[in-house]
Amino acid sequence: MRALDKLYHAVEKNDSLLCLGLDSDIQRIPKFLLRQRYPLLAFNKKIVDATADLVCAYKLNSAFYEALGISGLESLRKTIAYIPKKILTILDAKRGDIGNTARKYASAIFGYFRADATTVNPYLGFDSLQPFVEYKDKLSFVLCLTSNKSAQDFQFLKLGKSPLYLEVASKVKSWNKHKNLGLVVGATYPQQLRDIRKVAVGLPILIPGVGAQGGDLEKAIQYGAGKGGLAIINSSREIIYASGEKDFASQARLRAAELYQRINFSPKLR
Amino acid sequence: MRALDKLYHAVEKNDSLLCLGLDSDIQRIPKFLLRQRYPLLAFNKKIVDATADLVCAYKLNSAFYEALGISGLESLRKTIAYIPKKILTILDAKRGDIGNTARKYASAIFGYFRADATTVNPYLGFDSLQPFVEYKDKLSFVLCLTSNKSAQDFQFLKLGKSPLYLEVASKVKSWNKHKNLGLVVGATYPQQLRDIRKVAVGLPILIPGVGAQGGDLEKAIQYGAGKGGLAIINSSREIIYASGEKDFASQARLRAAELYQRINFSPKLR
Repeated sequence: MRALDKLYHAVEKNDSLLCLGLDSDIQRIPKFLLRQRYPLLAFNKKIVDATADLVCAYKLNSAFYEALGISGLESLRKTIAYIPKKILTILDAKRGDIGNTARKYASAIFGYFRADATTVNPYLGFDSLQPFVEYKDKLSFVLCLTSNKSAQDFQFLKLGKSPLYLEVASKVKSWNKHKNLGLVVGATYPQQLRDIRKVAVGLPILIPGVGAQGGDLEKAIQYGAGKGGLAIINSSREIIYASGEKDFASQARLRAAELYQRINFSPKLR
Repeated sequence: MRALDKLYHAVEKNDSLLCLGLDSDIQRIPKFLLRQRYPLLAFNKKIVDATADLVCAYKLNSAFYEALGISGLESLRKTIAYIPKKILTILDAKRGDIGNTARKYASAIFGYFRADATTVNPYLGFDSLQPFVEYKDKLSFVLCLTSNKSAQDFQFLKLGKSPLYLEVASKVKSWNKHKNLGLVVGATYPQQLRDIRKVAVGLPILIPGVGAQGGDLEKAIQYGAGKGGLAIINSSREIIYASGEKDFASQARLRAAELYQRINFSPKLR
């Protein structure tokens, strides 16, 4: 099944726009898990078991696994294999390189790690995205406007009257021949999200920045989701570190269920 | 020793501006190496043995190792450990993510893989680079103008009168408080390299795009190196795949020596 269809099905089946971010950090997971051979995997399995009916996607933040080297990357691969097949897996790797190198990155992400979807950086332009686009059954979210403060250093710069992030949105829309591209837009910039959604009608948007980063959930839904297209809301640290004790998975479920409810009862979505 | 000092010493000791790119591809290395437990490592060791007196740096292209999964990443780690300590190791990973994630990427590259230097993507702005900058003894080359054709999609866009790549050059120069930042500028855009060098006086520049990509070596040296600061010239495929037979290492040495000579006898460097 194509990744985008899988996402639509997961959204419908679980009635959820929640994407749970597995930013699983060896320094923050419960200490008793450190005895396991693959602590991040052990943590992720419990979190997945506790939340798989509440989410449409899991987003694995590659950096947290890479930082542990081989052991972390084994956890990454095994977690993706463990996640129920009906839920979208996003390997959040933000890669961007020239064509022959980008081909290798795409092969790592979609071939070796077997993720359904990924994130990519637009700075190098179309030929750097093309190897990802060629995986027609996969889904690649292009960074458009990121949730961090320094997004303003370059993404907000004006090209004539229009900022760079809108140029990215517009170009990605024009490159979306195979309907396998989306955008990343931070919830921390709701007005800009609204402008982007107008340019990028129909493109799925991955929205991080709710929770620890202070983004506005209701506005993210109001401006990102709805008639313009699908938006999924990512939350990571707020959910997975709800507790550092034995009850970490059930506490994560409670926190995920709260956010799930807030999303589904958002007045603008109804 | 600080990475930048290490680079200066290697340039002086070997009288070389040549950075050899280990874009070691399982599909292109000699077939007889595939019997080895770590074929990419076996390939790299022979290449390094054959060229270490001709280069100032080795650049390992992370994608080629990631594409092989765990085995590839073991080759990557072991190659970096194998390279003589006097030669700079650049893990070309082009990472870019928000602060807490960037910290993990920096930890993977400098901590786990123990590279001296890396490449980073500027799209997310300063706070995404800060965790790299905080490794004061390391060196991070920020993508400014890449060697590919589609660099024109975004990097050439005009902000008022000035293109985005010059804004990147200018900001990176202003962020270089610890003297541990550099730029990546493709040899395929020599005029633009000249403009960038004027803005980025003193910053080391990593110049890919010579060889297979068709960049102009003499102009790269003329405009990138010299009074404005240090530039190192990367070549990968042209050198490491000089032969696909048993003599691959000696043929790579010949090809590297040719380029070494061309660089050192470039009229503009003398």
